[in-house]
Amino acid sequence: MQIYKAHVLFTPDRTRFEVIENGYLAVDEGKVVGVYNSLPASLQDVPVRDFGDKLLIPAMNDMHVHAPQYRNQGIAMDLELLPWLENYTFPEESKFSDTAYAERMYRRFVRDLWRFGTMRTVAFATVHKDSTRLLMQLFKEAGMSARVGKVDMNRNCPEALQESVEDAIRDNEALVAEFGEDELVRPIITPRFIPTCTPELLQACGNLARKYKLPVQSHLSENRNEIAWVQELEPESRNYGDAYDRYGLFGDTPTIMAHCVWTAGEELELMRKNQVMVAHCPTSNLNLTSGMSPVRVFLNEGVPIGLGSDISGGHDLSIFRMMVYAVQVSKMRYCQDKSLAFLTLPEIFWIATKSAGTFFGKVGSFEPGYEFDALVIDDKELNHDNYSLLHRLERFIYLGDDRHIVHRFCRGKEIHEPKV
Amino acid sequence: MQIYKAHVLFTPDRTRFEVIENGYLAVDEGKVVGVYNSLPASLQDVPVRDFGDKLLIPAMNDMHVHAPQYRNQGIAMDLELLPWLENYTFPEESKFSDTAYAERMYRRFVRDLWRFGTMRTVAFATVHKDSTRLLMQLFKEAGMSARVGKVDMNRNCPEALQESVEDAIRDNEALVAEFGEDELVRPIITPRFIPTCTPELLQACGNLARKYKLPVQSHLSENRNEIAWVQELEPESRNYGDAYDRYGLFGDTPTIMAHCVWTAGEELELMRKNQVMVAHCPTSNLNLTSGMSPVRVFLNEGVPIGLGSDISGGHDLSIFRMMVYAVQVSKMRYCQDKSLAFLTLPEIFWIATKSAGTFFGKVGSFEPGYEFDALVIDDKELNHDNYSLLHRLERFIYLGDDRHIVHRFCRGKEIHEPKV
Repeated sequence: MQIYKAHVLFTPDRTRFEVIENGYLAVDEGKVVGVYNSLPASLQDVPVRDFGDKLLIPAMNDMHVHAPQYRNQGIAMDLELLPWLENYTFPEESKFSDTAYAERMYRRFVRDLWRFGTMRTVAFATVHKDSTRLLMQLFKEAGMSARVGKVDMNRNCPEALQESVEDAIRDNEALVAEFGEDELVRPIITPRFIPTCTPELLQACGNLARKYKLPVQSHLSENRNEIAWVQELEPESRNYGDAYDRYGLFGDTPTIMAHCVWTAGEELELMRKNQVMVAHCPTSNLNLTSGMSPVRVFLNEGVPIGLGSDISGGHDLSIFRMMVYAVQVSKMRYCQDKSLAFLTLPEIFWIATKSAGTFFGKVGSFEPGYEFDALVIDDKELNHDNYSLLHRLERFIYLGDDRHIVHRFCRGKEIHEPKV
Repeated sequence: MQIYKAHVLFTPDRTRFEVIENGYLAVDEGKVVGVYNSLPASLQDVPVRDFGDKLLIPAMNDMHVHAPQYRNQGIAMDLELLPWLENYTFPEESKFSDTAYAERMYRRFVRDLWRFGTMRTVAFATVHKDSTRLLMQLFKEAGMSARVGKVDMNRNCPEALQESVEDAIRDNEALVAEFGEDELVRPIITPRFIPTCTPELLQACGNLARKYKLPVQSHLSENRNEIAWVQELEPESRNYGDAYDRYGLFGDTPTIMAHCVWTAGEELELMRKNQVMVAHCPTSNLNLTSGMSPVRVFLNEGVPIGLGSDISGGHDLSIFRMMVYAVQVSKMRYCQDKSLAFLTLPEIFWIATKSAGTFFGKVGSFEPGYEFDALVIDDKELNHDNYSLLHRLERFIYLGDDRHIVHRFCRGKEIHEPKV
């Protein structure tokens, strides 16, 4: 057992922070035992690691990110979706047939997730099995948890990135054989999105998910043209979500859908019923002129939600920065429709931590039994005039960066800087 | 004379970057002489400072910021405008009657402007003459240029922050006497906004601006309730801008108006005619649910424009971050109205540098005769795979921070870190 002493802040529910000044947080076998105002007599003999005046908070979860687009982060932001895919995204992904190139890029990617305090990641890789495997190994080596998807696609993309349905099955099964039981890093079935997958491939993906009890990720209702295209490709579907559902890819196993900017009506109801999680990616939605996702509606309806950086549609890998953007986007929605109250700080913190964390089990809170995923924040430099603990956390979220994150834990273990 | 060697990037006009790989930039008496692909024979004997593979770009200008709200940066973002003013803004400004407190806060403020590469600032101080004077001295001491306004207000705010019209005149004249001819730091007439100033005070402000040829700054058309309130207070005015104009506060001397979110029609036409500059503050407009300023319209109409951090309505002091936000806000406007093309990278860079810089003279470009305000960017860490110079600059703007700014120049002089 181990005790950590610090100012402890977390969101047991979405309405409020639990704030324990100079609290004691006990961890046993990677899990939180309890948080205490003073050290209980029964724990007097447990070693205490004292973080002094620092903040101890749950670590971040990135619920949607394209690992191979890391080189493209922060470039070509003047382009709209199609020329950007053609000229930047697909050519870059093609390079990942070369595992040496993949290793160089993926090492930086994993190191930078670490820098920003993201201990759990749900990532798209590319169609290439070997570099996907490499990315999974790098996460494992780092001690950081991830669900990594070998991307499946076989139409409407460059030939070099297409695969046969048989290859898709074989490659996914190879990854399942190697990582299917791994505690830290597991595969996730990843049809890129309906337009790039034939019905046969979608069906194969659904079968794989069911057969191996694997989670699923994809893109949903990101922009209006895309939605119209999906309706053309899957004319019998009632909506974009239903198009996935018909292939067993919409909540039969735990499922995350990125964006959901235009989700409403029956699609929304299906997400609620099937508990499909939204990966809300506010910077990506702004950068690609997709629109403003109705996060308040998802909360009201009880649709699970987390935040995603969506590199390189998004330009920023920090989930703290995503919190700020998510609040701002909700404020713009509120301007358009005053019935949709904007997100508060506890709400967005809860979304990024405990709500997103459900995808990994008991993750994202410091209640007893939760896995100890945590960050220690040294905000000395930001705390120059007697701020309250909550204001200190708010300032770190709004102004802070990786310099202020001084320790990182995943599943109870301290995680050190991965080698690039 | 002095020559700087680096990759030189700037925007002589808003459609394009000038990019000189391994260029030579000659400076004489604080002004740019020229930028060259290779060293001209006539300059062979001039000392060369070689910045190697780094980027050399114009420095940033912050056209709207409330220096005394620096303590409140990044807190209370869950509040709407009125409770935020009452509970945070006004109580904080009241503390600036104490110059010791003011010095502690203002030193950090000036140091942090420096960190983010802002070499020219147009700032609101408070109503207090002594701490305003102190802020001006701190800018001067740092070698950074500023226009600093003692705030004038005498109604609709806490009594402790009100002043008589006579005091306002006397205090402004004292600052003019001391700084009126200063090359670096000058006063700017600063009625807070119409609702906090009686007609007598507004008239006194207009008289001071005309008498001493002083520039003017205030707030304009930030939110709809405010606009309706101004119309009630100044029932004869044709619009909010006209209400200022009636007192000689709307372009009789160089004038900056913050926000202009709802400016249109006759107000827009008056701004164009009087060449009143918009200080566009995208983060503030998002955080305070003000709306989305129509930057494309200002560009189309030829209304001058610059960017402002608007601390603490805005939460971020970096003008680079403001560029990103301004592009994103323009993309949301574009989603609503496809006739308003979103801002491109050269456009937003030009707005932040050369366009804003006109308020200070020939500032914000590297054309001959421009004052040498510059930043040296070391993006080694961001440049891991043969990016073009333009992509390197874009990545620095989107991903970079103060760590990547390694030298700063204002009016030809290198500016070192101010003491806090």
